[in-house]
Amino acid sequence: MRISELSAASQVPIPTIKYYLREGLLPQGEQTSATRAVYDESHLRRLRLIRALLEVGRLPLATIHRVIAAVQDEELGIHELLGVAHYALAPEVEPHPDDADWQAARERADDFIAGLDWEIHPDAPTRAELAQMIVTLDRLGMGFSAEALRPYAEAAHRLVADHELARVPFDGPRDKAVEHLVTGTVLYGKVFDVMRRLAHESESAKRVGRTGRPATVTTHATH
Amino acid sequence: MRISELSAASQVPIPTIKYYLREGLLPQGEQTSATRAVYDESHLRRLRLIRALLEVGRLPLATIHRVIAAVQDEELGIHELLGVAHYALAPEVEPHPDDADWQAARERADDFIAGLDWEIHPDAPTRAELAQMIVTLDRLGMGFSAEALRPYAEAAHRLVADHELARVPFDGPRDKAVEHLVTGTVLYGKVFDVMRRLAHESESAKRVGRTGRPATVTTHATH
Repeated sequence: MRISELSAASQVPIPTIKYYLREGLLPQGEQTSATRAVYDESHLRRLRLIRALLEVGRLPLATIHRVIAAVQDEELGIHELLGVAHYALAPEVEPHPDDADWQAARERADDFIAGLDWEIHPDAPTRAELAQMIVTLDRLGMGFSAEALRPYAEAAHRLVADHELARVPFDGPRDKAVEHLVTGTVLYGKVFDVMRRLAHESESAKRVGRTGRPATVTTHATH
Repeated sequence: MRISELSAASQVPIPTIKYYLREGLLPQGEQTSATRAVYDESHLRRLRLIRALLEVGRLPLATIHRVIAAVQDEELGIHELLGVAHYALAPEVEPHPDDADWQAARERADDFIAGLDWEIHPDAPTRAELAQMIVTLDRLGMGFSAEALRPYAEAAHRLVADHELARVPFDGPRDKAVEHLVTGTVLYGKVFDVMRRLAHESESAKRVGRTGRPATVTTHATH
């Protein structure tokens, strides 16, 4: 297909496509004359992936470059490729190796993960995220206990093993696998968050009942 | 206790406490002389709640005012009070009543919720959030299916019913119940998110195995 058709199919404007071509995010099309090139399904898949990283993952362009470089590096195994995308989606956590509280929290995070018997890379940034969370729970006087966290780990594991990884096409094109991982991680993360707040409302209604005046329901935040 | 002791116990600076007193977010202390007032546990609880709304919930001050007004309005039932806090934590979603796609998504969201048999207010903003998510899933070609969402609803319900609501002190002071709800909703939401990404890594490692070169693990985003 021509660039105009690629634009129509992907809903990405032509100047943006030309920018991605110049930046090397999108491979060049097949040149059919001095001024004309044709594109195929692989270009469409790549544009869908870039859109997912940008609009769903809200990643900065520098990070998108690194993810695309991993997609194009065929020597990288699929698990390692998905790891690059996954870690790109994680919020950055500043480790404080000199802070004794932080160090203790990091050890508790590592112990907790070891107790789960999951395969997690020793340098996974998710470990620092969990340590940060333990520091916050402690600071707010909510304490951290492995027993309180374990039901979350079990629920997450069930959803991921039974549903989420089943949706990732491991043996198809690399672009598609990464796109699925990104949209799945972000969107189903939001889906779960909404379900949790709905369940809160429903269970609260059932436990303490609707009493007194009804509350105004339009007081949500503007943030 | 004096204002200096209240400041030390709450870790809120004296000028900030004075600002909250002027703004009516914190009730006045008991005046013991023309220039001196004493404060008690209820003031400490209120400061903890304000800090939780500010630092954990990241709510703007105008919204915090509305939540505190609900805490102080003793005619408001506890379920309705928790609803005010809950809805304050929800991201704002712009409904598009004139857009046929949005309207269809909203109907599917309502149908899905009706199928769960949960007690959800007809005007709960969470319904609009779910509709927005259905629009996004559709736009990205991932489709929406009630079957795909139901496992998330069930997992959320189990966690909320068995663990989260057990932590909310329904029959204690109103400040404390709201503080627990806010920190619990936000922090355990993040806990689950981290667990899900850890489970993704582990299940991916177990399914496709670690092959090829190891990926660089320090490529996470700065956002």
